[in-house]
Amino acid sequence: MSSHHIVRDDQEPALIIANGAACSLELLHQLLEWQPLVIVLDSAMERVVELGIKVDVLLGDFDRDFDPYSFKEKHYPLEIVPAPDQNKTDLEKAFDYLIQRGHKAVNVVWATGFRMDHTLHNVTIMAAYREALKIVFFDDYSKLHLLPRHFEKWYPKDTVLSLIPIGTVHGIRSQNLFYPLHEDSLTLGYRTGSSNHVAQDGLVTITHETGDLILIESSI
Amino acid sequence: MSSHHIVRDDQEPALIIANGAACSLELLHQLLEWQPLVIVLDSAMERVVELGIKVDVLLGDFDRDFDPYSFKEKHYPLEIVPAPDQNKTDLEKAFDYLIQRGHKAVNVVWATGFRMDHTLHNVTIMAAYREALKIVFFDDYSKLHLLPRHFEKWYPKDTVLSLIPIGTVHGIRSQNLFYPLHEDSLTLGYRTGSSNHVAQDGLVTITHETGDLILIESSI
Repeated sequence: MSSHHIVRDDQEPALIIANGAACSLELLHQLLEWQPLVIVLDSAMERVVELGIKVDVLLGDFDRDFDPYSFKEKHYPLEIVPAPDQNKTDLEKAFDYLIQRGHKAVNVVWATGFRMDHTLHNVTIMAAYREALKIVFFDDYSKLHLLPRHFEKWYPKDTVLSLIPIGTVHGIRSQNLFYPLHEDSLTLGYRTGSSNHVAQDGLVTITHETGDLILIESSI
Repeated sequence: MSSHHIVRDDQEPALIIANGAACSLELLHQLLEWQPLVIVLDSAMERVVELGIKVDVLLGDFDRDFDPYSFKEKHYPLEIVPAPDQNKTDLEKAFDYLIQRGHKAVNVVWATGFRMDHTLHNVTIMAAYREALKIVFFDDYSKLHLLPRHFEKWYPKDTVLSLIPIGTVHGIRSQNLFYPLHEDSLTLGYRTGSSNHVAQDGLVTITHETGDLILIESSI
C-alpha cells in the first residue's frame, strides 16, 4: 500500500468548516492532520479553497448567489449535498449527514464569530445531538463540548475551564477546580460556572445529574 | 450655558466598553454621540485610550499586571472603581455600579468575540438584570437585547430577527415574522427561533408568557 493511500476510519472525527469567522491556519492544520472527512458549509467554500484545503463534501441550502457546481471539477471527487430544509441550519444538516453516514464524532471550526444569532444557536444546538454525535467546537480562544454525566481528564494547574449550562443543570460536583461545585445547580442567565480554573496539575472530575452542560477550555 | 456644557441625564443609556473584541469605530462613535457616561472594563482601557475616547469610569478587579492609576492624571477626572468580588464578572459589577447610581439603561460593546465562555456568559447574564436595567449589546453584526413580555417595533421587510431563549420560553406569539410563532415554546439547545425575518415593512409584534427571550437584529 502506498503511503499516500489513506484508509479512512469513520470513527475518527470528521471536520466541519462552518460559515462564521475563520480561525488561525495553525489550528486548522492541526485538525486536518489526521486527514478527516472535510465538510464545508455553503459559501464558506470560497474562503476555504483559497487556503488550498482539500474538501470532500460541500453542503448547504445554496439559496444565495453561489454556485456549488463551479467547484466540482477542480475539487474532484467533491460531493455536493444540497440541503434545502429551512427548519434547520446548514450546521445541523451537516450533523444529520454525518450521523446518516455512521460517523460518531466531529470537530467544528468557523462556527463562532460574526453574527451572534449563529454563534448562540450553533454552540448550543449540540444538546439535541448528545446521544448521536460527539461534537467539539474549536476557535482560536476556546475548545467547547458537551460534558458526559461523568467527565474526567488530566489538566495542568491554572487551565481555564468554564461550565456553561444550556438551560438548567442540577447535581454538579467537581474535583480539582479552584471554585469547587458540591451538588450545585447552574442556570444560564442567572448563575454559570464561567472562568473557573484547575487547582493543581492532575485529574479534574466533573459530574452532573441532569441537563446539558458545556465545558469550555480557554486560552487566556 | 456654553454649547460645550453637557447636562447629562442619567436616564440616557450609559455605555460600557467591555474587554472582548473591538467593534468598528463607526459603531462606537454612533453610541458615543449622545455623550453617555462611559465605563471601561479593566485592561480594555489600554485599547480604548488609543482611540482617543473620553472615559468616565474605569472598573475592574485589576488582578493582572495592569495599573489603573497610571491613567488617572491624563484622563482627569477619571473615576477608578476597584471591584475585587470574584463571584461576579467585571461586566456584572459594572451593571451593579450603574444600578446603584440610578441608571436605568446601558449599551454594551466589546462584550463578544474572543473567548466563548465570556461571550456566552456576558450576553445571557442580562436575564438576571431584567427588572433593574435595560441592557443592549452591540457588535458589528448584531444588536441584542432581552424582550419585554410585549414587544412592538417597526422594521423594514426582510430585517433578520432571531429569537434565542435563555433556557425555555413559553407562550410565544408573533405578528409579521416570516416564520410565525403561535403559542410556541422555544428551548435553547433544542429549538430556537434563529434567522427569522420580517415579512412586510411594518410593525412586528412578539409576545411571550414566561422565560427570558433574547431578540437579535442582525445585518446580513
